[in-house]
Amino acid sequence: MQRVDDGMGDRNTDAVRRAVQDDEVERLRHALNEEQQRHLRLRADFDNVRRRASRDLEAARRDGQRAALRPLLPVLDSLERALAAGSTDPDFYEGVAATHRLFVKALHEAGADPIESVGRPFDPTVHEGVATMPSGSVEPGIVVHEVRRGWRLGNELLRPAQVVVAAPREASDAWR
Amino acid sequence: MQRVDDGMGDRNTDAVRRAVQDDEVERLRHALNEEQQRHLRLRADFDNVRRRASRDLEAARRDGQRAALRPLLPVLDSLERALAAGSTDPDFYEGVAATHRLFVKALHEAGADPIESVGRPFDPTVHEGVATMPSGSVEPGIVVHEVRRGWRLGNELLRPAQVVVAAPREASDAWR
Repeated sequence: MQRVDDGMGDRNTDAVRRAVQDDEVERLRHALNEEQQRHLRLRADFDNVRRRASRDLEAARRDGQRAALRPLLPVLDSLERALAAGSTDPDFYEGVAATHRLFVKALHEAGADPIESVGRPFDPTVHEGVATMPSGSVEPGIVVHEVRRGWRLGNELLRPAQVVVAAPREASDAWR
Repeated sequence: MQRVDDGMGDRNTDAVRRAVQDDEVERLRHALNEEQQRHLRLRADFDNVRRRASRDLEAARRDGQRAALRPLLPVLDSLERALAAGSTDPDFYEGVAATHRLFVKALHEAGADPIESVGRPFDPTVHEGVATMPSGSVEPGIVVHEVRRGWRLGNELLRPAQVVVAAPREASDAWR
C-alpha cells in the first residue's frame, strides 16, 4: 500500500524519534548520575585508605621497635643478676657496671624506659602480681618488691613488671 | 504577521527540538565518557597507593627495628671490650660471658646478624676501611683485622664493619 504524503507521516516519525531521544537522554542522565555517585564512593574509600595508611605506618614502626627490643630485655636482666652477685675483681666489675649504664641509656635512646613499680599502687595495666606479702608498714595494694622490671615503649607496654604486692593486714592468707 | 498553519510550522519546531535533543544527547554522552575516564584514573591511583602502602608498611617496620637496634650495638662492643680485658674472678667472668652469648642470640632473634669480615675481600657496601696494613701472607684487598664489628638487619646494612685491609705489596704507603 502506498503511503499518502500528507505531512502526517513525517510528524509521526518525528514523534517516535523524539520519544527515542527522550529515552536516550533519560538513560544517559541516569548513567551519568550513577557514575558520579560511583566516583564519590571511590573517592571516600580512597581518603579512608590514605588516612589509615598513615596511622598504620606509625603502628608498623612501633611494631618493629617492639620486636627488636623485647628479646634484649632478658639480656639486661642477666647482666643485672651478674652485677647483683658481686665480684672480687673491682676493675672488671666496674667495666661491666659501665656497660650496664650504657645499656639502660641505649634502651632509653631506642624509646624504652623502665616502669616505676616499688612504692606505687598495683596497676594491672603495667604490673603482673606474682605474690602478696603481709606488711606492717606498707598500705595494702602497694607494690613492695619488683621481681622483674617492667618496660614501656613511649605510652605502650613493652613488658609488664612482675611484682609482689602488700597484702591486706587482717587476712593476708586469703589473698594468696 | 499571522502565521499560516500549513504543518510546516510544527515540522520546523520539531526540527529545532530534535537539534536541541541531539545536542543534549551529545553533551551527556561526552560527560558520561569523561566521568568514566575520571573513575578509571582514580581507580588506578587508588591501586597504586594501596600497593605502595603495603611496601611502606614493611619499610616502616624495618625502620623501627633499625632505630631500636642501632643504639644497642655499642653496648655489645662495650661488653666485648670488658671480656677481652679478662678478669681474676672466674665466676663473675663466666656470668658476664653467658650474658654476652645471650646478647648475640637476642640480636639474632631481633633480626640482626654480624657481618663476616676477616679473610674476606674488602666490600665497600658493608666495610669501612680505617687503615691498610702491609702483609706478606695475605692477598692485597683482603680484610686482615676488624676494628668494629659490622651488623646487618636481614639484607640491609645496620652498621658497617670498620676494617683494616691488606695493602698492595709494592707500595703500601701510597694506599694510606
